[in-house]
Amino acid sequence: MKSETQSKLYARLKELAVIRSTGALLSWDEQTHLPPAGTAWRAEQLAYVSKSAHGMFTSDEVGDWLTALEQTSDAADVHSDLGANLRTLRHEYDRAKKLPPALVEELARTEVLAQNAWVDARKKSSWKDFEPWLEKTIGLKKQVGNCYGFKDHMYDALLGDYEPHEKTSTIKGVFEQLRQPIVEMVKKVQSSKKRPKKLTGPFPIDKQEAFGKIAAEAIGFDFNAGRLDVSVHPFCSGMAAGDTRMTTRYREHELTDALFGVLHETGHALYEQGLQKDKYVGQPLADAISLGIHESQSRMWENLVGRSRSFWKHFAPIARQHFNLQALTDDDLMFAMNEIEPSYIRVEADEVTYNLHILMRFEMETSLITGELDVKNVPEAWNERVTKYLGLKVDKDSNGCLQDVHWAAGLFGYFPTYTLGNLYSAQFYEAARKELGDLDAMFAKGEFKPLLNWLRTNIHQHGRRYTARELVQRVTGRPLEAAPLLKYLNGKVDEFYGD
Amino acid sequence: MKSETQSKLYARLKELAVIRSTGALLSWDEQTHLPPAGTAWRAEQLAYVSKSAHGMFTSDEVGDWLTALEQTSDAADVHSDLGANLRTLRHEYDRAKKLPPALVEELARTEVLAQNAWVDARKKSSWKDFEPWLEKTIGLKKQVGNCYGFKDHMYDALLGDYEPHEKTSTIKGVFEQLRQPIVEMVKKVQSSKKRPKKLTGPFPIDKQEAFGKIAAEAIGFDFNAGRLDVSVHPFCSGMAAGDTRMTTRYREHELTDALFGVLHETGHALYEQGLQKDKYVGQPLADAISLGIHESQSRMWENLVGRSRSFWKHFAPIARQHFNLQALTDDDLMFAMNEIEPSYIRVEADEVTYNLHILMRFEMETSLITGELDVKNVPEAWNERVTKYLGLKVDKDSNGCLQDVHWAAGLFGYFPTYTLGNLYSAQFYEAARKELGDLDAMFAKGEFKPLLNWLRTNIHQHGRRYTARELVQRVTGRPLEAAPLLKYLNGKVDEFYGD
Repeated sequence: MKSETQSKLYARLKELAVIRSTGALLSWDEQTHLPPAGTAWRAEQLAYVSKSAHGMFTSDEVGDWLTALEQTSDAADVHSDLGANLRTLRHEYDRAKKLPPALVEELARTEVLAQNAWVDARKKSSWKDFEPWLEKTIGLKKQVGNCYGFKDHMYDALLGDYEPHEKTSTIKGVFEQLRQPIVEMVKKVQSSKKRPKKLTGPFPIDKQEAFGKIAAEAIGFDFNAGRLDVSVHPFCSGMAAGDTRMTTRYREHELTDALFGVLHETGHALYEQGLQKDKYVGQPLADAISLGIHESQSRMWENLVGRSRSFWKHFAPIARQHFNLQALTDDDLMFAMNEIEPSYIRVEADEVTYNLHILMRFEMETSLITGELDVKNVPEAWNERVTKYLGLKVDKDSNGCLQDVHWAAGLFGYFPTYTLGNLYSAQFYEAARKELGDLDAMFAKGEFKPLLNWLRTNIHQHGRRYTARELVQRVTGRPLEAAPLLKYLNGKVDEFYGD
Repeated sequence: MKSETQSKLYARLKELAVIRSTGALLSWDEQTHLPPAGTAWRAEQLAYVSKSAHGMFTSDEVGDWLTALEQTSDAADVHSDLGANLRTLRHEYDRAKKLPPALVEELARTEVLAQNAWVDARKKSSWKDFEPWLEKTIGLKKQVGNCYGFKDHMYDALLGDYEPHEKTSTIKGVFEQLRQPIVEMVKKVQSSKKRPKKLTGPFPIDKQEAFGKIAAEAIGFDFNAGRLDVSVHPFCSGMAAGDTRMTTRYREHELTDALFGVLHETGHALYEQGLQKDKYVGQPLADAISLGIHESQSRMWENLVGRSRSFWKHFAPIARQHFNLQALTDDDLMFAMNEIEPSYIRVEADEVTYNLHILMRFEMETSLITGELDVKNVPEAWNERVTKYLGLKVDKDSNGCLQDVHWAAGLFGYFPTYTLGNLYSAQFYEAARKELGDLDAMFAKGEFKPLLNWLRTNIHQHGRRYTARELVQRVTGRPLEAAPLLKYLNGKVDEFYGD
């Protein structure tokens, strides 16, 4: 039976969910529909919502309720409903309490304006137009870092917003295991003579949209409880029960960008649609664990499933109905989908080089936050790393340090979760294959439900009952390891570029 | 100089504007993009926003601020900035204070659910599915009426939400002057042998959208500060400075529905874009006077401008570039645009019979509110009136009492503002012609700016500085009269159906 204190806490959590989901709509709309002249007012709205939610969560009564409930016997098991909720809420409450409301409001307002400046700067490829906004954003994030406090690295403090309980040093360690082997893979590809035929267009945008929706639905996205729209930077927002929205962007002469973008966002969306938002309204049990775990879902559907031969055994005939692909055999198509080639843009990068994009951003972020790297030196530092890791010379900042929205949106500590996601995805996928048997035979017949159900059962339904580390251990029987991802990527390189 | 009290009041008004504009986005999204499964949560969000805004406006400190400011010398002139704001705020505050928060919240929640039920019921043409929701809505509106209080008619109390200071008896009086002459006009049309050629389609929807946008922009809509989308029931929402959104609906075999719909909503939108929302943030001076005045703007652009020969002198060649209209001369096109014919659907009705649609809804609403008419008898009562006024036999409720969203949205007292709008529009237009000279010569050249500027100067910029009655007197030198509308409509009948 729920105590009165628990009822009060849960009512507050519902109220917070109402406010936060309203903020999510304001953000979604900002990125998909807002007329340019409406930006300034939207910043006011988002600042107000952030401030309200922060004030409502950090009020002293919430602290009192948490303290009272933590002393009940129901709370002793951290994996019970109440115990799991309290563990997460306590962690978040203590963090949020440390942020002054004025800072929260200022951050929210700055994020809207900085993103707006970023959109313009990116269009004009003009770093100077964005520089003052990044300066301002980093200044605010340093204040946040100092408020949270940290022992080893200020970046630890910021990381906690996206990957709770994770440490900069741990990430550095795992990333170190990836760097050399991936650089080797790139060399192997470059020394091979094999190159895929190019996918020539045009691929009409309405057909791309139609095909993307077919694919999203086939792997399990429920359009009765969600949407697919267009935005400059693709994203997925699981804003509420029954309302999960994803976006993509289309270019008429690129087939794979939007297609794998949609599969990626669908992976996120399936996680959101698999959370028990109706049962645990506003509670941590209805939330995703971390961005890394979230990314493991998007990456799995985009790459491990979406670039597999068995997936295309089912989808190639459908793709051929939508697009003129006569010049290509199914094998050509497979190779084109799995091309490995260093390139400028992270979101369009192949599975192998993608991680190098993340590694360099992680290095830069950690130095920006400590002040070792000056904002004004970002373009230079960026371009140097692109040359060092990818062997490319950046032609313009819109293809370099202006390509991502993250810094404009104040998301420092976010990038490493992408590669964490890749690592988790490979490790989870190994476990799924072990349990479910011949996934490839299922995919070839268009059967994606067994994998989705496995993810629902083992990951989605739990919300934040387990931490990321607990979940990985529970699902795969091992801690996070680099081996499954490296094995998978090496397999791809050998398959398409081997002798 | 602003006093401290005034600063506090104005800060609160800004906060309210932030909240209400967020509610406007939640509503807009509900009608344009919300996935079906997201409806229940959206109802929670809208209920929360309504309750918050209501609580924030009706707090005792707002009452204290108003009382204090009312005693200052600045407030003495009710047309000064402060005086005008205070007059309106006092009126609204005293009304809002009378509503218990729980009722406000319940109404907001019910409106979302009832509209959702209406969409389904309309689709299935099933009155039974909607009846309980109307029953519930009317019950709540009666509570509202009792809370507001009234002397003559409970409908007076509800009317005040849309047409402040207006009385049921006054409306009845003006409407009585319209009924007989309009019925005569319809007879005259029916006894004439002249009939327009039909506009045969198809009119591809993307072309309709493109043409609608050209027309909206040509008469002055700023797409940098607004949008045009699709919804079941067309509407315009001036949600914030720089963000005015309108919607329409398209049918491939109807050209005029969406086109005049867009011109209509553009008229609303031009009013919204002409309000000084940046200067008077959240203040009554940044608000529209009343729905009747709002409707005068939409009706003027839709009908007096949009169905005129001079408008089509400019737009017919553009229309011919978009659509196959070879079978029609420009005169044929004009007659088709000005066809007068009794029909089921109000929003598609011609200028003459439109008012009969309103007259019957007004009669029914007033009886529903007093209980003289039972909800279960609505279809019967509706169909009787359609036969009496329009000479038609309703074939199904989706073409009858299920056609409008208003009752589902709790909008009782709203319908008469449409015919008030027609009356105002004709009277304003006479004044504009007198001052601006040959408007037709301007329209024929595609010059709509002189009329728009006249409306901006005489109506839009003032916000709620004047009441509707004051404004009409100020702009036209006379009180509201039926004569200008009747003269205009008789002119149309004579032009197209005369001997």
